[in-house]
Amino acid sequence: MGAFLDRRTGLPVVAMVGGGQLSRMTHQAAIALGQSLRVLASDPVESAALVAADVMVGDHRDLADLRRLAQGATVLTFDHEHVPTEHLQRLVDDGHRVAPGPAALVHAQDKLVLRRALAEAGEPQPAWAEARTVHEVTAFAEEVGWPVVLKTPRGGYDGKGVFVVDGPDQVADLLERHGTLLVEERVAMVRELSAQVARSPFGQVAVWPVVETVQRDGVCAEVLAPAPDLQDELAVAAQELAVRIADRLGVVGMLAVELFQTADDGVVVNELAMRPHNSGHWTIEGSVTSQFEQHLRAVLDYPLGDTAMTAPVVVMANVLGGAASAEDWAGPGLDERVHHLMAHWPDVKLHWYGKGQRRGRKLGHLTARGDDPAEVRARAVAAARYLADGVVDPAFAFEQEH
Amino acid sequence: MGAFLDRRTGLPVVAMVGGGQLSRMTHQAAIALGQSLRVLASDPVESAALVAADVMVGDHRDLADLRRLAQGATVLTFDHEHVPTEHLQRLVDDGHRVAPGPAALVHAQDKLVLRRALAEAGEPQPAWAEARTVHEVTAFAEEVGWPVVLKTPRGGYDGKGVFVVDGPDQVADLLERHGTLLVEERVAMVRELSAQVARSPFGQVAVWPVVETVQRDGVCAEVLAPAPDLQDELAVAAQELAVRIADRLGVVGMLAVELFQTADDGVVVNELAMRPHNSGHWTIEGSVTSQFEQHLRAVLDYPLGDTAMTAPVVVMANVLGGAASAEDWAGPGLDERVHHLMAHWPDVKLHWYGKGQRRGRKLGHLTARGDDPAEVRARAVAAARYLADGVVDPAFAFEQEH
Repeated sequence: MGAFLDRRTGLPVVAMVGGGQLSRMTHQAAIALGQSLRVLASDPVESAALVAADVMVGDHRDLADLRRLAQGATVLTFDHEHVPTEHLQRLVDDGHRVAPGPAALVHAQDKLVLRRALAEAGEPQPAWAEARTVHEVTAFAEEVGWPVVLKTPRGGYDGKGVFVVDGPDQVADLLERHGTLLVEERVAMVRELSAQVARSPFGQVAVWPVVETVQRDGVCAEVLAPAPDLQDELAVAAQELAVRIADRLGVVGMLAVELFQTADDGVVVNELAMRPHNSGHWTIEGSVTSQFEQHLRAVLDYPLGDTAMTAPVVVMANVLGGAASAEDWAGPGLDERVHHLMAHWPDVKLHWYGKGQRRGRKLGHLTARGDDPAEVRARAVAAARYLADGVVDPAFAFEQEH
Repeated sequence: MGAFLDRRTGLPVVAMVGGGQLSRMTHQAAIALGQSLRVLASDPVESAALVAADVMVGDHRDLADLRRLAQGATVLTFDHEHVPTEHLQRLVDDGHRVAPGPAALVHAQDKLVLRRALAEAGEPQPAWAEARTVHEVTAFAEEVGWPVVLKTPRGGYDGKGVFVVDGPDQVADLLERHGTLLVEERVAMVRELSAQVARSPFGQVAVWPVVETVQRDGVCAEVLAPAPDLQDELAVAAQELAVRIADRLGVVGMLAVELFQTADDGVVVNELAMRPHNSGHWTIEGSVTSQFEQHLRAVLDYPLGDTAMTAPVVVMANVLGGAASAEDWAGPGLDERVHHLMAHWPDVKLHWYGKGQRRGRKLGHLTARGDDPAEVRARAVAAARYLADGVVDPAFAFEQEH
């Protein structure tokens, strides 16, 4: 094999840049594989830093910190896209394995780079243009029709860096604040889908069923697996699209292809994530192999695991920071809410990230399994709502009385 | 609630005495609940110490170390039974929560104490006697018939401290070496079963399906869930027995009741474990709530989780240290064996404990799920055998060629 192995265990060490919940859940998966994730956290109380044995506190933008992290690791990977690719190239030049590599990762970092690559590959995507001036935006908008969507090429997530504009008024201001922007047609979409694929350096790929992602205020609120009533042909087309993109870009690890399903039953690519992704949290209980274990397998060039579902329907609901901050929260405390959650929904699975409460922040998620899509979804959503806000859904409160 | 909560997370901290694989897998479960297990390990490279963030190296027989561990923890619990009960009583007197408490735990520590308690409760168990002299043993044996089984009341596990004797010859020697012994009839048993139950301080209980445990050389090799062809009445009787014992002894946390199924379709109690137990590893993937999560819920007095199975048949196979020690092992290295395991059995779940190889040692376990008991068992066993020894089962090698 030739790769670095931990002498204490005879097994590899994966180093992950970022100490958030993705890293936290990847550590859980690493434990089963006989490993212990090495984490680069920006703070010792970050989500993953609270639970991992091998934590380095440092800055993901600092080459020296990245080099310390890579030292003695089998492979370096990511829980976010914000590491400068030039640093990653230096690590590769030093002889470290980086997965995904910088040439692939840049497509998840820079939306303009992604748009160009997809155009070159002839893959379906919204009409788009690169815009440096108000004139370029209005010329594009006159072609596709207002409103259009302006996006910062880099740094956006969870709806940040995305601006829907109805006319030319705000454009000058946005260009001044953000520089060059990506401008896209506003797709007449039916819903959002996500197609996840894992790819290993050997070239093995594994896909999961295509899921529907339900956004609220630009943040993923629910994931429905499989996407309800999705035609087989469209599901297969989305999976094939994800595999083609993973292959063409040379992705190693998990790839989430976020898609818009269009009114004419097609799909267009919204954006990519090259790491475990919120749209795959359902796989922890809902699939034989979770996205976290699969990411480890893929970056280590292990054979990939079975992606069959463990139940006909699986729904994941995010627990988003509620109306109040931790300080002025007047309802039952977190530990008490966890008690009530467990009492009322003994079959709903909790994943809590150990993060401080903040409005809209992803604090944890819940997963429900079953047979009936509507029932499973209602259960997951009611449980998440209760845990976030202490709000009891009337339908479930009624049931509780009987 | 009133209990200690971690100020960083608003959630409890469970401290576990022991840094073995049970502690390692409990930490995995703790992560999902927003917690991080505090571990008392005897060595910094113990199984759980390799993966947990909050590790204290110390001695479980040392009261000062136990006090350090309990300080700032919500509740203290165990991954083995070897903590002196007088120390635990001191912790309770100090105001710490200990689960299970010393008055319950002693029944898992001392087989004579257990036999007396079960006799008092009128629960089914083998004929037994306390023996200090050869005469006491032979008098008992003349009543029940040779051979009889001599057991050290304390400290035995995995077949250690258990001696089957055919006649009086070795008895004097065993009594001299071990002091007072428990002598039991050798039960004419059909097979071994395990009934697991979780119990919370509130008194809530949750049971799993009764499983068959297959021992090899006194060590658990396989667990078949549910126990194949077990009559419903006997399964229910075993579950009710486990619940009665948990209630009567005031167990808090997981209780495994190891049972012999007798030729006349009854069950008798062999011994107890008051912690997560090898016979429940299948629950990680095979049940909605794993024994590790349930143990945390129970010791924290959280409501217990659903114990429904996630597949009709689940089989766990231990990976026991093979013929060779790590040093003189000539076959493929561990990392290479993991590769082949994953390539050949993409649906078998690996749990590797990060321990050094030693003959007969529990190094990890594998779990397979499916519909057909014989197929699932063959798959789990072949995979475990390959991982332990690099031996390819001919049946599976054949399949591989097609």
